[in-house]
Amino acid sequence: MRKEILYLKIARVLEEQVVNGTLKPGDKLPSLRSVQKMYNVSLNTAKLVFWELESKSLVESRPQSGYFVSPAAERKRSLPSVGKIKATYREQQPQDLITKVFDTLYDNEITQFSLGLPDQSLLPIAKLNKGIINAVRNMKDGGVSYEPVQGNLNLRRTVAKWSLILEGKITEDDIVTTSGTMNAIFNCLMAVTQPGDTVAVESPVYFGIIQIVTSLKLNVIEIPTHPVTGIDLDAVKKVLPKLNACCFISNFSNPLGCLMPDEHKKELVRMLTEYDIPLIEDDLYGNLFFGPSRPKPCKYYDEAGIVMWCGSVSKTLAPGYRVGWVAPGKYKDKIIHQKLLQTISTPSLYQEVVADFMNYGRYDHHLRTFRKTLYANCLRYQRAIEMYFPDHTRISQPQGGFMLWLELDKKVDTAELFDIAIKQKIGFAPGRMFTQYNQYNNCMRLNYGLAWNDKLEFDLKRLGNMVKDAL
Amino acid sequence: MRKEILYLKIARVLEEQVVNGTLKPGDKLPSLRSVQKMYNVSLNTAKLVFWELESKSLVESRPQSGYFVSPAAERKRSLPSVGKIKATYREQQPQDLITKVFDTLYDNEITQFSLGLPDQSLLPIAKLNKGIINAVRNMKDGGVSYEPVQGNLNLRRTVAKWSLILEGKITEDDIVTTSGTMNAIFNCLMAVTQPGDTVAVESPVYFGIIQIVTSLKLNVIEIPTHPVTGIDLDAVKKVLPKLNACCFISNFSNPLGCLMPDEHKKELVRMLTEYDIPLIEDDLYGNLFFGPSRPKPCKYYDEAGIVMWCGSVSKTLAPGYRVGWVAPGKYKDKIIHQKLLQTISTPSLYQEVVADFMNYGRYDHHLRTFRKTLYANCLRYQRAIEMYFPDHTRISQPQGGFMLWLELDKKVDTAELFDIAIKQKIGFAPGRMFTQYNQYNNCMRLNYGLAWNDKLEFDLKRLGNMVKDAL
Repeated sequence: MRKEILYLKIARVLEEQVVNGTLKPGDKLPSLRSVQKMYNVSLNTAKLVFWELESKSLVESRPQSGYFVSPAAERKRSLPSVGKIKATYREQQPQDLITKVFDTLYDNEITQFSLGLPDQSLLPIAKLNKGIINAVRNMKDGGVSYEPVQGNLNLRRTVAKWSLILEGKITEDDIVTTSGTMNAIFNCLMAVTQPGDTVAVESPVYFGIIQIVTSLKLNVIEIPTHPVTGIDLDAVKKVLPKLNACCFISNFSNPLGCLMPDEHKKELVRMLTEYDIPLIEDDLYGNLFFGPSRPKPCKYYDEAGIVMWCGSVSKTLAPGYRVGWVAPGKYKDKIIHQKLLQTISTPSLYQEVVADFMNYGRYDHHLRTFRKTLYANCLRYQRAIEMYFPDHTRISQPQGGFMLWLELDKKVDTAELFDIAIKQKIGFAPGRMFTQYNQYNNCMRLNYGLAWNDKLEFDLKRLGNMVKDAL
Repeated sequence: MRKEILYLKIARVLEEQVVNGTLKPGDKLPSLRSVQKMYNVSLNTAKLVFWELESKSLVESRPQSGYFVSPAAERKRSLPSVGKIKATYREQQPQDLITKVFDTLYDNEITQFSLGLPDQSLLPIAKLNKGIINAVRNMKDGGVSYEPVQGNLNLRRTVAKWSLILEGKITEDDIVTTSGTMNAIFNCLMAVTQPGDTVAVESPVYFGIIQIVTSLKLNVIEIPTHPVTGIDLDAVKKVLPKLNACCFISNFSNPLGCLMPDEHKKELVRMLTEYDIPLIEDDLYGNLFFGPSRPKPCKYYDEAGIVMWCGSVSKTLAPGYRVGWVAPGKYKDKIIHQKLLQTISTPSLYQEVVADFMNYGRYDHHLRTFRKTLYANCLRYQRAIEMYFPDHTRISQPQGGFMLWLELDKKVDTAELFDIAIKQKIGFAPGRMFTQYNQYNNCMRLNYGLAWNDKLEFDLKRLGNMVKDAL
């Protein structure tokens, strides 16, 4: 929709050459002058191109020699392997581990690689606070009254308007607001399943989803998930007759950061439509893309109304606001009923603030900066891990979001490593948290939505050393 | 705790004489001068006594004759009867009726006797809005971060501190904040029941509780409830072995407005403790007492930690804020787990605002005025109903809260009457909404938490005429 700025366009061309291997680590890039001539731009624009690439750790300048492809741009890392779902079921749920990790989250001295949230320093807090004061003034009653059960009208209207990727397929009337995405998923599962039903999820899967599903007495089928292309459609196909619902993060899944290709999304929706199985699509990372544009959600391909498309600002703007929404397709009435009986309504104020922030383009502006930071951080983390972690550490290549998934040597038990690291004031999320089975014990999830600095790099180095010691 | 102001003390003595029948409707009261002498007070204080009684519709002045007990002070009205629970089960749940009533709630032209909320004009909106702006300034991050799952510390501390009636039996650590009381009850039921379990509730019962219980696939036992003393303990005793949980509004239940006597509360907790049955105590109306002091909750008698005491400001201060809490006794960890998986955390801002409002005594001040208005309205409604409704209409005598329950002639079907009344822009809650059985079809609930004026009185008159026409 927006015209891409010239220097970014040129930077993207060079970036693609790096990514597809035309330019390899160590290769010299064309000089400033030749870029200037090649694209018929000013010297300043050419400089911006290289600075952009440098900010992403893709290139580095050497004194008197020009720009070279950085070793960090090496994209041929070993990917983590796809989960083997036949692993034995461990009697003890990973709940104790999850509780242990959560108990460390409010200790400010700990480097929180374990968090599933962006660092506060990356969020536009001052602007949001101004937004609150404006909203109180505009609302008159300050949110004292119940709003309609379906949720704040401004927010619903704004979400519909800004869901450009859906090309106008949803309106304010198709959306129900919720207390964040977790609450949207909880409501969806309450609406479309009965105790004893079976739900398909990714593997590794965000542990919160397993917690909800278990609490609702549902059975879980973990679908093998490729670190680049997401869930294995053949595996879904095999269990289709058993399923009562699916719950997938289609774009930049947590923890793998994988992105389902459009044709997979289309095929998934086709298969599920045939069996009339609801798809709870958790699209909370969709706006944090590193590619050229926001990926489509499965909802885009949904003609029958089986996709319940869930979103929020919890991962991008204000986790604590608990502002989320769902476009529940044909299950809308059921969702509204669930919301009514669980909480009657959602508080208005933060919804108004978010709606305003979106409406005046501030959200879009914030997202642009935020994505840049995240992508740069992702490359920095990958480079640091290559430098400081044991060889043969497998690293995911997220295409968006802010989670990195590492697969370490089989000998390393990351649940044990967690206890060692936390004593050194370093937290991470052990792999065992992300499955109901006895697997991923040698994996860990790292959050790169933190402010990059020497301390952070040093902590990655210390963590790498701990992994080496565990071998 | 607070020293009662002198004129209020004298007014209360006279009020008690009216209530216990020493002074009957039409009786002349002592003159201003004799009150002045009797209590050794100034003429002004004596005047305040009568104005206070007049504001409650207990007395009325007649020119040149002095004050007389008002006919509205007649307390010997026929009480509604206790529900007969052997009524047949109606296949069709009252859901359609509930939906129909809710669909009329956002029409400003309708007189909302049906609402379960106080009118906005009775709420301190301007002060609360100031509170929001102060809170944003004090919080720094404006609530962008997740707060701990257990909830906002300021609010927990303040609720513990201001729960004077519990005499220090709970601390901030015993409280979990929720999105209003409905959400507290939902969480409690999720925490302590399994599908197929059985829960005891009042009858008539607030329909939201039936909706939650049904949605969680639980069985409901409706316990006969006396319009003055609340649930029938013998009836509870008979079903004890079948019960997995109880969910009662102990103080000023909705819709009856009844108040369990202390000895009933004590005995209920004793019985349930013996069987280790959790009691979900919904105490959201407890601060809206008309008697001399706030009644104790069942939680006061709870030694074993089986009482999950739920409260909120939804009925007293700011329904839309969705600020509530629960002191879940020994089930605290289960509640925290439920909250985590359903919404992760509650938004901080409104919790901060409410905590501040309580801390600086503003809440207490507001409650004093609010209770006075409600009590005066209650008497005005009763008087209006006696004047405008058919004879033999039975009226509840709420001891707090803002709900009135009417039992009309058996010939009147209030579900049908609703359709007629709503065309005349008058809404009320038909009795059938408050039970899972085919009963209370000739009952209705009226909200007296509205601003009293001629229009409101006229609407009660119109409604009375519609009832007469239905005979």
